[in-house]
Amino acid sequence: MKGEVAIELINTGTELLLGNVVNTHLSWLGRQLFPLGLRIGRQTTVPDGPAIREALLETMARRAEVILVTGGLGPTGDDLTREICAELFGLPLVLDEGVLASIRARLDRRGIALRENMKKQAFVPQGAVVLPNLNGTAPGLYLPPAAGQTSPHVFLLPGPPRELQPMFTEEVRPRLGEITAGRVAAREMRVFRVIGMGESAVEEKIGSAIEAEGIVEVGYCARPNEVDFRLIGPAAALDRWQEPVLNALGPHLAGLGEEPLEAVVVRLLRERGAILATAESCTGGLLAHRLTNVPGASEVLHEGLVTYANEAKTFRLGVPLEVIATHGAVSAQTARAMVAGLLRRDGIDLAISTTGLAGPGGGSPAKPVGTVFFGFGVRGREPVSWRACYPMDRESFKQTATQTALDALRRYLQHGLWPEEN
Amino acid sequence: MKGEVAIELINTGTELLLGNVVNTHLSWLGRQLFPLGLRIGRQTTVPDGPAIREALLETMARRAEVILVTGGLGPTGDDLTREICAELFGLPLVLDEGVLASIRARLDRRGIALRENMKKQAFVPQGAVVLPNLNGTAPGLYLPPAAGQTSPHVFLLPGPPRELQPMFTEEVRPRLGEITAGRVAAREMRVFRVIGMGESAVEEKIGSAIEAEGIVEVGYCARPNEVDFRLIGPAAALDRWQEPVLNALGPHLAGLGEEPLEAVVVRLLRERGAILATAESCTGGLLAHRLTNVPGASEVLHEGLVTYANEAKTFRLGVPLEVIATHGAVSAQTARAMVAGLLRRDGIDLAISTTGLAGPGGGSPAKPVGTVFFGFGVRGREPVSWRACYPMDRESFKQTATQTALDALRRYLQHGLWPEEN
Repeated sequence: MKGEVAIELINTGTELLLGNVVNTHLSWLGRQLFPLGLRIGRQTTVPDGPAIREALLETMARRAEVILVTGGLGPTGDDLTREICAELFGLPLVLDEGVLASIRARLDRRGIALRENMKKQAFVPQGAVVLPNLNGTAPGLYLPPAAGQTSPHVFLLPGPPRELQPMFTEEVRPRLGEITAGRVAAREMRVFRVIGMGESAVEEKIGSAIEAEGIVEVGYCARPNEVDFRLIGPAAALDRWQEPVLNALGPHLAGLGEEPLEAVVVRLLRERGAILATAESCTGGLLAHRLTNVPGASEVLHEGLVTYANEAKTFRLGVPLEVIATHGAVSAQTARAMVAGLLRRDGIDLAISTTGLAGPGGGSPAKPVGTVFFGFGVRGREPVSWRACYPMDRESFKQTATQTALDALRRYLQHGLWPEEN
Repeated sequence: MKGEVAIELINTGTELLLGNVVNTHLSWLGRQLFPLGLRIGRQTTVPDGPAIREALLETMARRAEVILVTGGLGPTGDDLTREICAELFGLPLVLDEGVLASIRARLDRRGIALRENMKKQAFVPQGAVVLPNLNGTAPGLYLPPAAGQTSPHVFLLPGPPRELQPMFTEEVRPRLGEITAGRVAAREMRVFRVIGMGESAVEEKIGSAIEAEGIVEVGYCARPNEVDFRLIGPAAALDRWQEPVLNALGPHLAGLGEEPLEAVVVRLLRERGAILATAESCTGGLLAHRLTNVPGASEVLHEGLVTYANEAKTFRLGVPLEVIATHGAVSAQTARAMVAGLLRRDGIDLAISTTGLAGPGGGSPAKPVGTVFFGFGVRGREPVSWRACYPMDRESFKQTATQTALDALRRYLQHGLWPEEN
């Protein structure tokens, strides 16, 4: 294996140490770096304020070649990352008129006045490269090694994930590629997203055979109602294993790489020119939300009804009152009637529904908390329903149930498979 | 202020650095420690294997009084925390028959045979206190300071959260109470969740005055369309500042502590016995999803329509075709007509709507990507609308727009404030 590049991550943020906010930067950046042949060797969290100084000094003493710092670039008094770095590297802070202009433009678009304390975000350590911030006012900064030195390369990045993530992708990743060019081993990662098959089954069917060969690194990551099956190795070896893997996973392969299930479903709908409508009770809009997260969803999702009250199910979808009275709102009959109601409208090709008990209250022995009935139908065919139980907290329940609903759509669109009634 | 107790946390785990697993230990432990008057001064993540040695040495060089270590106590070859600590403190590892018996008993209950590599979990550094593990095989370990020393107190804890958390509560917390007895000042934390006022404005209006007094610690955390304004100090000082803070924030104070905005809205709706309906276009179901994340939402949310297609707006909500033709689907007129459509149904007291351009495609100079029109209405009064622009990625756009919509509901329910048309 070629030599490792020493990369360290320093996260600043008192809220991280107090536990008010979970640090997602480490995992996100870790996943971005891996395909580049890089990994984070150590990560440190320090409070806002001057503690970043000591952390940086120690990181340099360990001879880190690349130092990624997050947070502390904002306008308030506890934001000191920029100032401390400038002082530590002996670089004067200079007002950058371009940065100031783009802060002004951003505030103008939102109708906000420029306050005096915001101006400090436009100061740049001399010689630093400004990394534009698409989603916020504070730019990132890249401090290259001092003249005659080969390290460290210091990247100062904003704390909010929606600011940091595009900045990393656009500005940091290409620079890391240049910095480490020719020094890291080319490895590919392929991630197979599997639904309807547990990780031990994936291992038994195909994973252990790949591992036994000893060339490709095998990993598993279990998520709600999904297993990510990860292969890392030389491209030739991965190509050789591709077909055996696809055969072993069959229709349980829900997607490849980072394409989320909802994006697979929207893509398949577009490819087939099919129009979808959804009716949700217990999933409360999450199904429509996940689908509409995908650009272009408006071409294939006609409407999504969150019929939470019984009267809404009846008025909006024509679910007969006697169906609800006889079988309950949480029933196979109601799930099917919701789908039938959606399909009554012109121009709808596929429809799916959810009705269940997210909890924490409201269960019974016959229908405990976590019970959900799904309805599914296509134009010109009787709707079907099936039942599942996800006894977990409210948000995990909604996540898992929408995963099942999306996968049912995927199986039908991709393989013509019809859900099994139970 | 009484002296700080220096506490550091070291998390071991290659999966944390690769990004396969998000580190939740820091936030969980941070929240447990705060009520004890303690906080984590620094946190470090190192890979599995020998890296824990260097991290421990550095932590001791910084004279940490309490060191919490997670992970590396398991049976496999890369679990080295126990062995490295024993060596570092010069303590021989001794087989503990009691621990071995409880590992055997646990495996017996699950019908699993004791493998040779599992036995290493029963070895204990001489003088260490065994901390029982209710949910796993590897016990925790408490290494008190060496004879004649007052620090460090080292706690070795298992990596899986469901093993660590009860062990912390039962075994570590009481010991930390004894170690720090009489030395920590009781401090309270108050978090004010602010919407409609940026962090620099909060600092200018009230934060800098509190900071200038020098008694209460002030912090800011910017989230999408929200600022968390955090005060930490003695209860008396916080009480004294309470009214000035409330006056400075006014109706921009959206909530206190950890109650999310959607929970505030559901609570206010329940208190007032008001029934809500939502109609979403560009937010695509996220508004309904956030509201239905709150237990009890079914009592106050009647329905949520995701009318994505123009025909859905017309058929479901009676938005006149000529309104859409004349003003566009993304317009103040359409937003108001959506609200009017919801309020046409019996039993709906409040209604809110969103229609806009989430992007990435579809903008124009007059209505660029990020434009959103909100509609708001209550029974018996003409609906109003207002316009905003959130030029950001699709998911952030939806998050920010729903935050605005929820806050409009909150302002009306809490203060009787009506959105300002623009």
